[in-house]
Amino acid sequence: MNQYFLNRVSVRNFSDKPVSDSLIEQMLEGAAHAPTTGNMQLYSVIITRDKDKKAELAPAHFSQPAYMNAPVILTFCADYNRFVRWCELRKAVPGYNNFQSFIAAMLDAVIFAQQFVTIAENEGLGTCYLGTTTYNAPMIADTLCLPELVVPVITVALGWPEGESEKSDRLPVESFIHHETYRVPGEKDIDKFYEEKENREDSKKFIEENGKETLAQVFTDVRYTREASEHFSDVFIEFLRRAKFME
Amino acid sequence: MNQYFLNRVSVRNFSDKPVSDSLIEQMLEGAAHAPTTGNMQLYSVIITRDKDKKAELAPAHFSQPAYMNAPVILTFCADYNRFVRWCELRKAVPGYNNFQSFIAAMLDAVIFAQQFVTIAENEGLGTCYLGTTTYNAPMIADTLCLPELVVPVITVALGWPEGESEKSDRLPVESFIHHETYRVPGEKDIDKFYEEKENREDSKKFIEENGKETLAQVFTDVRYTREASEHFSDVFIEFLRRAKFME
Repeated sequence: MNQYFLNRVSVRNFSDKPVSDSLIEQMLEGAAHAPTTGNMQLYSVIITRDKDKKAELAPAHFSQPAYMNAPVILTFCADYNRFVRWCELRKAVPGYNNFQSFIAAMLDAVIFAQQFVTIAENEGLGTCYLGTTTYNAPMIADTLCLPELVVPVITVALGWPEGESEKSDRLPVESFIHHETYRVPGEKDIDKFYEEKENREDSKKFIEENGKETLAQVFTDVRYTREASEHFSDVFIEFLRRAKFME
Repeated sequence: MNQYFLNRVSVRNFSDKPVSDSLIEQMLEGAAHAPTTGNMQLYSVIITRDKDKKAELAPAHFSQPAYMNAPVILTFCADYNRFVRWCELRKAVPGYNNFQSFIAAMLDAVIFAQQFVTIAENEGLGTCYLGTTTYNAPMIADTLCLPELVVPVITVALGWPEGESEKSDRLPVESFIHHETYRVPGEKDIDKFYEEKENREDSKKFIEENGKETLAQVFTDVRYTREASEHFSDVFIEFLRRAKFME
């Protein structure tokens, strides 16, 4: 296997070296050859470079360091708007203002984004996904003037890397591969799957810094809380209604 | 840019040459280095090789040729089950039975799947996504014994390619790239974006075969109808409730 796949890292620190529009366009053109539902290409990408626009969009990503440091921000959207406009101009009556159509467009957008990330990393660029995109979809939609049937699903911070980025640990493959049917892990399996992660020095540091007893508590009580998940669930479902994907 | 990205094709015909378990495992291990939300790896993959199991799963994919021809089927799932079990065994109280958590896990699963597809194609294997996965999620979940908080989101048919596969056309980049804000296309833009596609010989053949007036009508009236989209929207939302992602 190409060693790139085993050694890739996400990058949160970027140099001042500019990323040209033509390079970004070339990479997006390449990424568009990724698979897409019925060859409909149900996605679009909004490129943010302008300083004022970037500052306006920052709160939607909680002004996190990867966002603030990156010279270019790409917001990947599930997009049925263009396709529906085409249908309407071609005497065809579209029926895509529903949840399954959003899901198809989200699949397309994420596949396109991930192909873009792989291409960019192969060009030596650094990338970091911002998962905050679906939390603050309404704010992003307002700032980027997204029309109906366009939903931001994932954002990529892009730039030339500065310094070294640390490779993340991963769970053993047996934790996420199942043969023929799903095998629910027992207590001993869970111990084994998470042993390495729990014994890492940085995990111990997270536990201590947050005054918690276990690493799992850092996730449930600090990083991904029920309160935030439930709040942003309501916000996102309401946004899907506003975007006309839940008619 | 690596020419692979510009020339990749989806494959629907596969040879009899077997794909070894160890190769699949290595490729999945590589794919797991793709980015993931908070390094939680909110996904799992179920490998289908057994003939009886594959026959049982076939109706969920409408027994489409790519499914029937492939020696290996991989069902990629959004999965919070393993993470929640870990939390519960570590005195942590998880709050992930909500829609935003499903979205995070779906992002993880699709990124993981696309990285797997890229790795497999780089090994010379052929792949084809089956978008039928979210249509028939309940049937797939039953067949693969998926527990709570596990939702199948995309399926990959895998094997060594047989014969040539035709490269699909793509829209011009200006149709899906927006700078700073979204620019809704006018009628002339739409004409330009879809001109090449509409003038293709295979497009004209589709229109004639289906007795339609325009290519867009082949999509709205035959391939992706309102009736099917609405029906499968209801089925999928109901399934997300059953999977405990809409509590």
